[in-house]
Amino acid sequence: MLGGIQAGKLLVTNLIDHAEREHTNREIVSYWADGTTTRSSWGEIGVEARKFAQALLKLGMQKGDRIATLAMNHTHHLSSWYGTAGMGGVLHTVNPRLFEEQLVYIFNHAEDRILLFDKMFTPIVEKIKPQLKSVEHYIQFDGEKGDYPTFRELVDAEDGDFSWVDLAETDPVGLCYTSGTTGNPKGVLYEHRSNVIHAITEVQPDVMDLATKSVMLPVVPMFHANAWGIPFAAAAVGAKLVFSASNEAPVLWKLIREEKVTHSAGVPTVWLAMFADMDANGGDYGDLNTVVIGGSAAPRAMVARLMQNGIRTAHAWGMTETSPIGTTGAFPANWDELSFDEQVDVICMQGRPPFGVELRVVGEDGAVVPRDGESSGALQIRGPWIIQRYFQAEQDAVGDDNWFDTGDVAVLHPDGTMQITDRAKDVIKSGGEWISSIELENAAVGCPGVAEAAAVGVYHPKWDERPLLLIVRKPDADDLTGEKVVDFLKDKVAKWWLPDEVKFVDELPHTATGKILKRALREEYKDYKLASLEPAE
Amino acid sequence: MLGGIQAGKLLVTNLIDHAEREHTNREIVSYWADGTTTRSSWGEIGVEARKFAQALLKLGMQKGDRIATLAMNHTHHLSSWYGTAGMGGVLHTVNPRLFEEQLVYIFNHAEDRILLFDKMFTPIVEKIKPQLKSVEHYIQFDGEKGDYPTFRELVDAEDGDFSWVDLAETDPVGLCYTSGTTGNPKGVLYEHRSNVIHAITEVQPDVMDLATKSVMLPVVPMFHANAWGIPFAAAAVGAKLVFSASNEAPVLWKLIREEKVTHSAGVPTVWLAMFADMDANGGDYGDLNTVVIGGSAAPRAMVARLMQNGIRTAHAWGMTETSPIGTTGAFPANWDELSFDEQVDVICMQGRPPFGVELRVVGEDGAVVPRDGESSGALQIRGPWIIQRYFQAEQDAVGDDNWFDTGDVAVLHPDGTMQITDRAKDVIKSGGEWISSIELENAAVGCPGVAEAAAVGVYHPKWDERPLLLIVRKPDADDLTGEKVVDFLKDKVAKWWLPDEVKFVDELPHTATGKILKRALREEYKDYKLASLEPAE
Repeated sequence: MLGGIQAGKLLVTNLIDHAEREHTNREIVSYWADGTTTRSSWGEIGVEARKFAQALLKLGMQKGDRIATLAMNHTHHLSSWYGTAGMGGVLHTVNPRLFEEQLVYIFNHAEDRILLFDKMFTPIVEKIKPQLKSVEHYIQFDGEKGDYPTFRELVDAEDGDFSWVDLAETDPVGLCYTSGTTGNPKGVLYEHRSNVIHAITEVQPDVMDLATKSVMLPVVPMFHANAWGIPFAAAAVGAKLVFSASNEAPVLWKLIREEKVTHSAGVPTVWLAMFADMDANGGDYGDLNTVVIGGSAAPRAMVARLMQNGIRTAHAWGMTETSPIGTTGAFPANWDELSFDEQVDVICMQGRPPFGVELRVVGEDGAVVPRDGESSGALQIRGPWIIQRYFQAEQDAVGDDNWFDTGDVAVLHPDGTMQITDRAKDVIKSGGEWISSIELENAAVGCPGVAEAAAVGVYHPKWDERPLLLIVRKPDADDLTGEKVVDFLKDKVAKWWLPDEVKFVDELPHTATGKILKRALREEYKDYKLASLEPAE
Repeated sequence: MLGGIQAGKLLVTNLIDHAEREHTNREIVSYWADGTTTRSSWGEIGVEARKFAQALLKLGMQKGDRIATLAMNHTHHLSSWYGTAGMGGVLHTVNPRLFEEQLVYIFNHAEDRILLFDKMFTPIVEKIKPQLKSVEHYIQFDGEKGDYPTFRELVDAEDGDFSWVDLAETDPVGLCYTSGTTGNPKGVLYEHRSNVIHAITEVQPDVMDLATKSVMLPVVPMFHANAWGIPFAAAAVGAKLVFSASNEAPVLWKLIREEKVTHSAGVPTVWLAMFADMDANGGDYGDLNTVVIGGSAAPRAMVARLMQNGIRTAHAWGMTETSPIGTTGAFPANWDELSFDEQVDVICMQGRPPFGVELRVVGEDGAVVPRDGESSGALQIRGPWIIQRYFQAEQDAVGDDNWFDTGDVAVLHPDGTMQITDRAKDVIKSGGEWISSIELENAAVGCPGVAEAAAVGVYHPKWDERPLLLIVRKPDADDLTGEKVVDFLKDKVAKWWLPDEVKFVDELPHTATGKILKRALREEYKDYKLASLEPAE
């Protein structure tokens, strides 16, 4: 033997051991569904996790078994993650907002042996229970005891005198399904090693900038790609965590101000509601200094408002398949030389990849396009926390050299900044070139009288597809015509991007989270004939 | 296969690939020994590294071969690190300030095949050359061509069209010898994996707080434990690096101000010289906002002065065997509630371990002592960047469960803060209890009339050892007596710590870096008889 360094495995259990040992008294605050607040600490989470691991073993769970949760963010949920990891189990978070058939499919496909659920989700559990084939134990996470054994009972019966089972770095530790728009949901299986590397990457100044001193309120739910990995990253540095089972703006503001929250992370719609509440009821930002926005693109006005209030705003991009950090709104090297407006422009893009993540953009011919800020194509990604293969799949989810196709269309700028221009399936393919439906919509929404806009590609014999722009008029804008909209767009998008037709509709279909349901529109307009192609012409 | 995440190896070559790709134009500035300044970039370092790897292969180097450098901090040195890593070699930095016999021993023990050296070190190389058994090629790093082939020539002959060789995470990539105070120097062999985990840990807000926007001037030389890992950490985030072949205060201030340096790292003596220069010649701190001080304990006044000027000051502790980060001056959770003086007190301790490092303090009976801020003992450490076995050693350097004994005596505080109280060999063992020679000396130096103080343990028939305090008087303090010194100490240290005897000496021996040479004093006073034990009494 030549000599060398200790092997030191990268395990999720090391994260909780570190937090329990080095940050014993650092608080974990939970605002529960019943309106009460409790205080725990990293030290207590460690103890509770070991007791839960003992309870799981007593229930006959074995290494590799899946333990499902249908739960909001709270202390017990956190303990269950680490306890499951420590007995070699796989913690499977499930999104309670999915449709019944998706839920049934996911539980059965994952072959979950235990289902832990918040009391508020009891009606869902009772409804789908008859269809669940593998669940042996139903355990209520929170609230007063109902018809099921509770997490508290299970844990209180144990003494916590337990050492984590022997684990390999590449053992699975977490499972999360993507609710794909087509086909069945697919499971992403996280590993100890990938979660740990992701966690120590996430605390970087250019990612979430987390330190012991930080107080983090993850608005993003733990069932969304591990709450973006925050419960692991916070343990790595001993940050204080503030959990809320409610995402109502007044509750969040109260927690932010009273618990001295410095960091928060969530989707843009949360911030729209927060701003509306602040405008109506007053109040300040408390100690908030960092906001990470992801899930979908943040409007420019939202970014600007946060930044105007001295809050570092980081736009993040990622997906369940990427653990989920792909890029974050890292400050570029020339940040201090930019004007405020230029800084907002930078943050409105999707940011840059931290060390570990590699990105490339591939054109329709399969060739990698230059990082020139203009050439767009399919965004591909690889790295030590990016998916290789979906759970139980028969083949890898990646192509040559491990590149995973994200389904997004993007450009890369020379300084490494990534900008999403569209979802691949929403892009309008005209004459071999791509028109971004998102950019067309964003431009159209700026036109006076336009309440909402959606661009879809419809069949064209010469160009393959051409844009049809669907517009919902504002109440007082009856005189708005298609010509006016196109005139407005002329100096905002390339000439060949101008829609062939503008069609006024009464309303547009939306997803549960408020996004325009493009899939439904594509379906509705798949046989649409552009007026310009009518025989009369 | 169940499914999973990409294996994504942790390799040093990924660091330079990332920096070259994502931070292509971010500058690397070198101030050379001849007083000139050159500008390179992460993009150019990447190209130069590939060319150097090609050159090494052309010279017949093979995977695992050791390539030695005897050099200051500069661009070519940086390129040689990454180029050597990329051809599978082991970059061996050697400290040019070592004694001739140590240098000869180290080169021969490492079996270095190539020696790259700065022109200023040519006299050393020529002197030891006849005794070097394995070196086949001597290459001059910098300056005008002399009698040896130059790095520039080698690199210019290659085209850079090269892909890194296939590497395993645990392949060795670096070698650094500790100049132990007893016995021969011992080599610490760093691995790709350990260097990468160390790098992404180092950028954390609670460690060095490095981002793309950061401009780092590592005063610490690249031959001191990899310049504390900074050349790797900087690549991970694309920070700008400013190298200086000179550590003269005026040069460093000029670089700090002109290159807009935000971060610096070095030993305390550098800052004493920097302050003296500033006091004499004026000038400000420029954009400096973070200073990491390590190598030996920083005086309180130094920490306070930096902090008074709004500079985040982090005290770091580590050693060659720990890659080297063991602890850093992370802000504790209650930082903002502390007074300025309390904050300085916290920073004057050695800080807390980042995730990955585990510490424990063991008493003389081998039992782990409590983290109570009072119980002291041998400081032990383990983790994924801590040594397992010295290079070419026949047995591990660690004890049970991989604990490595640091040779330091420390206490751990309840919040995880570590405080070095002494080197194990300097501690005075009195009646089974330990007296910290460092604390005794620090207290004595505060006594009016005392210029310098050293405490050593001398034989005592009842207590085993008792403290002898050696004092150098200030020029105008002829009336200072031993009684006065002891009186002064009475309310500063425990009663049983008070020295049995105070002896005035004209001078104390020092190491090359200005520390008191305790080893020589222990040798000199090993048979010293305390006056109180003389038969006359």
